[in-house]
Amino acid sequence: LNKRDVVESILTGKPRSPGRSGQAFAAANIALCKYWGKRDEELNLPLTSSLSISLRTHGTTTDIEPADADEYWMNGERLAPASPIFQRLKEYLDLFATETPLRVATQSNIPIGAGLASSASVFASVALALDRLFDWRLDRRALSILARLGSGSACRSIDGGFVEWRAGTDPDGMDSYGAPLPDRWPELRIGLLLVSKEAKSIGSRPAMKRTRETSVLYTAWPDQAARDLARLKEAIAGRDFVRLGETAEANALAMHATMIATWPPVLYWRPESVEAMRRVWALRDEGKAVYFTMDAGPNLKLLYRETDQAVVDGAFPGVETIAPFA
Amino acid sequence: LNKRDVVESILTGKPRSPGRSGQAFAAANIALCKYWGKRDEELNLPLTSSLSISLRTHGTTTDIEPADADEYWMNGERLAPASPIFQRLKEYLDLFATETPLRVATQSNIPIGAGLASSASVFASVALALDRLFDWRLDRRALSILARLGSGSACRSIDGGFVEWRAGTDPDGMDSYGAPLPDRWPELRIGLLLVSKEAKSIGSRPAMKRTRETSVLYTAWPDQAARDLARLKEAIAGRDFVRLGETAEANALAMHATMIATWPPVLYWRPESVEAMRRVWALRDEGKAVYFTMDAGPNLKLLYRETDQAVVDGAFPGVETIAPFA
Repeated sequence: LNKRDVVESILTGKPRSPGRSGQAFAAANIALCKYWGKRDEELNLPLTSSLSISLRTHGTTTDIEPADADEYWMNGERLAPASPIFQRLKEYLDLFATETPLRVATQSNIPIGAGLASSASVFASVALALDRLFDWRLDRRALSILARLGSGSACRSIDGGFVEWRAGTDPDGMDSYGAPLPDRWPELRIGLLLVSKEAKSIGSRPAMKRTRETSVLYTAWPDQAARDLARLKEAIAGRDFVRLGETAEANALAMHATMIATWPPVLYWRPESVEAMRRVWALRDEGKAVYFTMDAGPNLKLLYRETDQAVVDGAFPGVETIAPFA
Repeated sequence: LNKRDVVESILTGKPRSPGRSGQAFAAANIALCKYWGKRDEELNLPLTSSLSISLRTHGTTTDIEPADADEYWMNGERLAPASPIFQRLKEYLDLFATETPLRVATQSNIPIGAGLASSASVFASVALALDRLFDWRLDRRALSILARLGSGSACRSIDGGFVEWRAGTDPDGMDSYGAPLPDRWPELRIGLLLVSKEAKSIGSRPAMKRTRETSVLYTAWPDQAARDLARLKEAIAGRDFVRLGETAEANALAMHATMIATWPPVLYWRPESVEAMRRVWALRDEGKAVYFTMDAGPNLKLLYRETDQAVVDGAFPGVETIAPFA
């Protein structure tokens, strides 16, 4: 089974001739229980379920229109056909076998270098924009699956709020998509903390692969993920912020631990990352409920409640605040 | 079974009246495959086997003589009876039920704060000095077991060179002791690198316990340790330095990873630790065979060969060099 088969099965009987243009926005998402390890590299099917929270206002707007030749723009800059990101977009758009070439322009308002998987909001907004351009009127589940074929975590960016990506078991992945939880939690805050702008030494895809192949500790990751997912859902249902924060932080640290135990070692942390973690722990020692999560990069995403905004601003000048449900 | 029973079984029929004095030196040791997790807290029996290399010249000299009252000195300072280390020494020496109180003076030449488990060389030298004071003439195995009752890793400090501590299976631990490997490797060097003098936030004993109790990833640690022990023994037998270095570094990182995945997180690393690790990796990117290991603290111990001494001195000014076999 390949991506093309999956796309065809979803688009059976759907129009392939474009309208004048399609536009859509998709927010980035931050995983509280991480997606770390694939069971199928081709279809981006995960080994474990994951759970994220949408950044609501921060993400990507994509405009697509028919063109004479494929043409991709990112944040106002035209991509060179030889660039890896052009290739990745082209490979994705080719899956849809459209009647005409496409001009695709994405615009992201995510702080550059924040280590926010911008590929999630890019591929989710592309899938949504295609749906509008061709007037497919697909349901959220189908859109989530299409987004996943572009980038795994993009399947969690079709909806807002808390989204659970169930790993599923079908070989074709038709049961592996992001489903929103009904819960809203307006007091929640996310703080984007840029601690280092150094380039990553390794992308998250090869890091994920290397971890699965060489890390002995990774054999325990599925148990960790299952435990944390259950805890997070309990915490969300019961509005238990300490449990949410503790679980999200423990899950992120465990993911990084599986990488640290990989050979050659994968360490995304910079000295400044350790400094920032220690500052979070110092706040907790003072009784403040501030937690963090981290993805495949050196930066931290703080988790806290509205009532602790002044505490966070004081300890982390320059932090960018997001209210995911505001 | 308690410590006292074990000591009694070893000392059956041995004299309990002291001579005039007993003196002994024991070198500190650095584990290449770590001791991390106990199967018996009372007898310091490990969950997994471990393997160390002796620091030869760096360790502890202990002098013991009969006295009117128990009196302990460490590096020229008399210990206050209320101090935790006095209590720990007294508890250990009381196991031997000696006829008279003892004056015990230990002198260590290990760089202060280097994160070298000085308790290993202290308890090994105390066991050796007791043997001389009382003229027990115990064999190495018995001495290693006695040292272990003071501090687990001390059982690897009775002998020099490479020492394997076999975990054993007996409930009384009579098969759990350090046994030297016959191999000598004169080109090996160890570099002690002090990156931070900040006090540890948590001792290694409670850290070990917390990891075993709360880290999901720790469930994979016995597999990691078994794999690494086998690789290290192959590397030593075949004088394969790259394999030795890679395995020791991977093992240390995996141990730290199990702690990072503990709740609350146990992170011994300081920003400077990450900086130093990255410097080691930069050297390797340049083709230099320099590796590190780390124990429950922020400092690094470099592993390299004599031929790379200038490289190490250049990259790490102030490093203290040890030739374990020279």
